[in-house]
Amino acid sequence: MAGPGDTCRLRLVKLRRALLRRGLDGLLVTGYGNRRYLSGYTAADMGFAESAGFLFIPTRGTPFLLTDSRYQTQAAAEAPGFEVVLYRKGLVPLLRSLFADLGVRGFGFESAYISHALAMRIIDACAVDGIRARGVSRLVERQRQVKDDDETDAIRRSVLLNEEVFNEFIPRLVPGMSEREAALVIETLMREKGASGPCFPTIVAAGENGARPHAEPSARKIKKGEPVVIDMGLVLDGYCSDMTRTVVLGKVDKKTREHIRLVRRAQQAAIAAVRAGTSARVVDRAARTIIREAGHGDNFGHATGHGVGLEVHEAPALGSRSYLRLRKNMVVTVEPGVYLPGIAGVRLENMVVVGEKGCEVLNRDTTFLDL
Amino acid sequence: MAGPGDTCRLRLVKLRRALLRRGLDGLLVTGYGNRRYLSGYTAADMGFAESAGFLFIPTRGTPFLLTDSRYQTQAAAEAPGFEVVLYRKGLVPLLRSLFADLGVRGFGFESAYISHALAMRIIDACAVDGIRARGVSRLVERQRQVKDDDETDAIRRSVLLNEEVFNEFIPRLVPGMSEREAALVIETLMREKGASGPCFPTIVAAGENGARPHAEPSARKIKKGEPVVIDMGLVLDGYCSDMTRTVVLGKVDKKTREHIRLVRRAQQAAIAAVRAGTSARVVDRAARTIIREAGHGDNFGHATGHGVGLEVHEAPALGSRSYLRLRKNMVVTVEPGVYLPGIAGVRLENMVVVGEKGCEVLNRDTTFLDL
Repeated sequence: MAGPGDTCRLRLVKLRRALLRRGLDGLLVTGYGNRRYLSGYTAADMGFAESAGFLFIPTRGTPFLLTDSRYQTQAAAEAPGFEVVLYRKGLVPLLRSLFADLGVRGFGFESAYISHALAMRIIDACAVDGIRARGVSRLVERQRQVKDDDETDAIRRSVLLNEEVFNEFIPRLVPGMSEREAALVIETLMREKGASGPCFPTIVAAGENGARPHAEPSARKIKKGEPVVIDMGLVLDGYCSDMTRTVVLGKVDKKTREHIRLVRRAQQAAIAAVRAGTSARVVDRAARTIIREAGHGDNFGHATGHGVGLEVHEAPALGSRSYLRLRKNMVVTVEPGVYLPGIAGVRLENMVVVGEKGCEVLNRDTTFLDL
Repeated sequence: MAGPGDTCRLRLVKLRRALLRRGLDGLLVTGYGNRRYLSGYTAADMGFAESAGFLFIPTRGTPFLLTDSRYQTQAAAEAPGFEVVLYRKGLVPLLRSLFADLGVRGFGFESAYISHALAMRIIDACAVDGIRARGVSRLVERQRQVKDDDETDAIRRSVLLNEEVFNEFIPRLVPGMSEREAALVIETLMREKGASGPCFPTIVAAGENGARPHAEPSARKIKKGEPVVIDMGLVLDGYCSDMTRTVVLGKVDKKTREHIRLVRRAQQAAIAAVRAGTSARVVDRAARTIIREAGHGDNFGHATGHGVGLEVHEAPALGSRSYLRLRKNMVVTVEPGVYLPGIAGVRLENMVVVGEKGCEVLNRDTTFLDL
């Protein structure tokens, strides 16, 4: 049976091929998602400045997990194929001695996941030893776009648990509850049901607040008859889910019904466009055209979707300028929205797995989707 | 009365003086805490890659808050002294046109709070226009070390709410509860009582798990008689609190009592050493000496404390190599610990405000502190 060690080994083989093609002797991995994907090590970083560790993947031989004493036990347990090395005097001196041992002449670092300050310290220190450090981008992210079967299964479980939370939450949602209270109920249910937690701050945005795509839940009380945007996602076994529903308490008036139906039509058109070989922007356009033709071209400012996996926002983006071709087993959201400033917003979001001839919609829930 | 606008204006005056001394025409502010401190804008970033906005503080004239359309309303409402500008085509083109309008020749960016990738794009684009972009560090952080009275009040409220949560939690802590369940109860109470949430993942670490200073709560059930390290903090009105208690359910055996007493003695010695003018390392040494003399020098690996404010880990650090002199109205934790691998850990943490002749301990709770 393939344990996580084997999974990581295959991923490392692919990465090493990409490194060799670029003439690099190794890659310093600094991003949480990439680190976890390649090693199995699950620790999260604390903010920008406090890393839970770094990987160094030489093109041959044992890969390294560099961390500090707080994480030693966890690192050794979770990343069996890696040699765990502690930086007692900081990362930079450790890298220098490691590179000397390995004979590294030039290596890449993840330019998007390292601070300018740390990158410059590494570059300068390595230059002293005649080693070239070069910023690279998307080497591991590109690999992560296409999910293994184990990953798709984990994402599916995450989606279904998220829906379970949503379905327990809905009967508790009553007029007079504040957005903040509602978000708290949702996040508490997530944790009670075994999720590590939400993978982004839950959005509950009623009436005019729903017109802000990234509204923070406020003390505003939810009223009957107004659309309430609920955007929620959780982490289960490391994998994220992401779903948006727009619900109405009590009677749905004609205007709101049309608003929701328009977004749903846009969503269904985009879902129908998803298949391997299609350009990501074609999926975006499918949704956008319907919204524009309904006269709301200016009320849909964000992209139609994004990849989901170990992180809630991953490649690929499904935007109007995304030329990437979709590939089998990419997992993406499809989430058009129509936002009427000062009035209300509607967004509907499902997750799909890209297939050869179409896609599999991971969501089962249909609350307020098909009015 | 001094509104937040006035507070920010004073902070900007100080910052501008520092910029002029360095020959810079402005500062690009990228860190969440620094951004909020200078502008009042409360939005948080999503991970490493997704910023909620940037400030550009020219040495004279109106400061700017650069963000995207999702945050426009919030930015305008929260940062009244700032001109909110949206980047429709990305940050870099906006900066170029802004710098051209303002006649900027050279400016600083926060090297520790920007990715290497984005910094390089800014540096390269500015070079084309003959503008010098230079990484700077700790300009705003240094200012933030010393708290205004309003800030100290906000931190005090955060500490007291955190203790209220702790005191409601303790009667619910029973043998057989898992670490994870306990952490969930704590974090739910935080939110129910009006906190924005925890300011770091709550630690509940029983028995041998307590020997790992940054243990993640696990499914392990808490047993009678073993020390349980509870490290918790919340955000209230933007300000953080941070407290650790080590509690025992049922009878406390002699060994554990001595273990707790040793850490408490070390903590009290450190607290007694805190006053304006004292070097941070002297405070650290006060705790460390007591632990070393008890034969546990190797069992206390981390620093004795750190600053707390808008972020839970701020300057100054109270470590063995922290030469900084404490100043009046700095707010720091005092949190020595003794960790016995495979057996148990004890850490005790209070927060104090540095005064002229000593310090004010912000905590009121004494659970298991004075056995």
